[in-house]
Amino acid sequence: MSTIVTVDTVDIRFPTSEQLDGSDAMNADPDYSAAYVEITTDADDGHSGHGFVFTIGRGNDIQTAAIRALSPHLVGRDVEAILDDMGSFWRGLVGDSQLRWLGPEKGVMHMAIGAVVNAMWDLKAKRASLPLWRLLARMSPEEIVDLIDFRYLTDALTRDDALQILRAAEPGRATREAELLEHGYPAYTTTPGWLGYSDEKLARLCREAVADGFRMIKLKVGGDVDDDIRRMRLARETVGPDIRIGTDANQRWGVDEAIEWMGRLSEFDIAWIEEPTNPDDILAHAAIAKGVAPIPVATGEHCGGRVMFKQLLQANALSVLQIDATRVAGVNENIAILLLAAKFGVPVCPHAGGVGLCEAVQHLSMFDFIAVTGTTEGRVIEYVDHLHEHFVTPTDVSGGVYHAPTAPGNGMEMLAASREEYTFRG
Amino acid sequence: MSTIVTVDTVDIRFPTSEQLDGSDAMNADPDYSAAYVEITTDADDGHSGHGFVFTIGRGNDIQTAAIRALSPHLVGRDVEAILDDMGSFWRGLVGDSQLRWLGPEKGVMHMAIGAVVNAMWDLKAKRASLPLWRLLARMSPEEIVDLIDFRYLTDALTRDDALQILRAAEPGRATREAELLEHGYPAYTTTPGWLGYSDEKLARLCREAVADGFRMIKLKVGGDVDDDIRRMRLARETVGPDIRIGTDANQRWGVDEAIEWMGRLSEFDIAWIEEPTNPDDILAHAAIAKGVAPIPVATGEHCGGRVMFKQLLQANALSVLQIDATRVAGVNENIAILLLAAKFGVPVCPHAGGVGLCEAVQHLSMFDFIAVTGTTEGRVIEYVDHLHEHFVTPTDVSGGVYHAPTAPGNGMEMLAASREEYTFRG
Repeated sequence: MSTIVTVDTVDIRFPTSEQLDGSDAMNADPDYSAAYVEITTDADDGHSGHGFVFTIGRGNDIQTAAIRALSPHLVGRDVEAILDDMGSFWRGLVGDSQLRWLGPEKGVMHMAIGAVVNAMWDLKAKRASLPLWRLLARMSPEEIVDLIDFRYLTDALTRDDALQILRAAEPGRATREAELLEHGYPAYTTTPGWLGYSDEKLARLCREAVADGFRMIKLKVGGDVDDDIRRMRLARETVGPDIRIGTDANQRWGVDEAIEWMGRLSEFDIAWIEEPTNPDDILAHAAIAKGVAPIPVATGEHCGGRVMFKQLLQANALSVLQIDATRVAGVNENIAILLLAAKFGVPVCPHAGGVGLCEAVQHLSMFDFIAVTGTTEGRVIEYVDHLHEHFVTPTDVSGGVYHAPTAPGNGMEMLAASREEYTFRG
Repeated sequence: MSTIVTVDTVDIRFPTSEQLDGSDAMNADPDYSAAYVEITTDADDGHSGHGFVFTIGRGNDIQTAAIRALSPHLVGRDVEAILDDMGSFWRGLVGDSQLRWLGPEKGVMHMAIGAVVNAMWDLKAKRASLPLWRLLARMSPEEIVDLIDFRYLTDALTRDDALQILRAAEPGRATREAELLEHGYPAYTTTPGWLGYSDEKLARLCREAVADGFRMIKLKVGGDVDDDIRRMRLARETVGPDIRIGTDANQRWGVDEAIEWMGRLSEFDIAWIEEPTNPDDILAHAAIAKGVAPIPVATGEHCGGRVMFKQLLQANALSVLQIDATRVAGVNENIAILLLAAKFGVPVCPHAGGVGLCEAVQHLSMFDFIAVTGTTEGRVIEYVDHLHEHFVTPTDVSGGVYHAPTAPGNGMEMLAASREEYTFRG
């Protein structure tokens, strides 16, 4: 038996706003940040669990404080008891009758729970000497559904539905694991498309993306429609007709504006329009989805949790579901969302970029491929070539794919030197 | 000209869990708390602005830290410039491109903005020597709509719609102000109905409620259906057929369970079922509303903001809309919600209780009566007889009505001695 000894948190911020990396129609000057947690135990195996919440600067201190506030739920507890029943651990945190008032089940407190849940999954994977995707993909369907809280989900997905999906995917697991290790998982890149870049830089980065093997890129839109048309034309001319081009409005529009704006961009063969409006506006997404068809609507990076995703699916409000590794309450909730998407037959194309989101979320898509949907068709993980050098096991992306990580853990461990150097000191 | 000098925050917690006041099906042991803010200026008028976020204990420190994080938006700023354009002030806070990542526009950061916005309204009202309700009710329709951010609302409520509603209510303002001052605004009481109380205490408090002039009470439900039937029968027998009895499940159920459970309680002539399921589940509320008809569905105390309220209205998911003074980003956003409700013809019956929520929210209903809907029909403000003694201008409730406050301000100022005594020290 071992015991949790410390829950160390740190407010880490990278001054990315100086380069206008990450600039879009709503986020003018992000400083990519991580509210970081390391959970240590008294075991002598040398393992600790790492997790974080990604934010874009101001407020990262509040997010860090929220993680720290969970210490009483952790310090002194039996590690094996938690790791053997991650479903109960999740429910205990999310169900804290006082803390849930701050959400419930969304926002700062929910994301803090996600950091801690992810850190414990990191520890579990390290103890098993497995990358997280493989640890998850080797669990039985029964063990997987035990991770999920089905409260509020059963009108769309029951425990039996989930079991059926997982059992149907059991036969091909070994084949797909081998396939994943050989071929990787498809990626697309947002690197060319930030609003703050010049046309020259956009074209250059588009050429580089294609040369690097990406089959899809994404451009930020929503600042000025004439600029968007110009940039889109330039991008399309640069990459040719065979490369998919997604667009991302970062919540800029209301319903009518979204439909009009995308009408003006429709000639460029758009792969999807992402976050056309407020991320909580299910009914507006549904109206926009109708109005911009056949352009698919994508959303999810700001979706607070499984109840919102459930409704987006029920309302036919999205055609592409974008999970994020740190927006919801960790691995358990993201598995629930993967199963919801599978039930509705909607592809999951994770949001990534930021700090360490690529490192983290790839595990979930790889698990999905092996144990849930059994396919990568129509699926692609976002990739942005920023800040990977700060991680112990950075993503390995080449030839337009994520190569499956083989190092134990969830990928979220940041180098100690980087944590120290970028600790925010006000 | 004067300048904001300090933004003082304090983590205040009352140990209410010791009495099981406030116990319900999801909140077993709340410690009613306030993440409190006082904003001071260098004016020599002696006025400061007070606001808070209500929470139920753990996490109040995080909420307090979130308010404190807004200091850079406030300290050193020109007070009159803010007070003369509260719409721009609101947009500046909600639109902070980095902080909004933590929501967006919901949860801890959004509520923190609400505390600060409400505190500035308190200051504005004190400077005008008016209670907040009267300050608001004397603003022109144009001034009122300038407070509102219509982004994401225009598919349901445009600026012109809002102006039309407000202009239609202009003629009778003076008459209704006099009427309000004479007769007050209808209240109902939740005091009898907490789950933690014995049957004897329930019956006694029901009798007292009727003797005190209340025409409606509310019972918590959702713990055990047989207990609920017994308690409901007891309450109905005690108060007789003419007193309305609401029920509140505090998010306990999924869709089917809500419909079945309320079917078993329907014989008792239920005024409404409140929070039957997850507060973000618009589609589930809509399904429940159909399934439990003619029992009305009420919700809102955990509704994160105007975009969610808009959808609840669009989806016919509620028949009673329950604003809360501290869940959204303050007075401005609550006015947007009052106007949405007016547009859809849905009565607003505010959530109150907790710490100081009665003191705060009454101003909004009174403003609604005078300047928005012009009626109190079908409307009633929650009242719970707890903790009022800690406020400088406690609510004046008797004969089943809230008597309109006449003291300047928003009602949220807590006695300095109480703030000191109940400061949480870990």
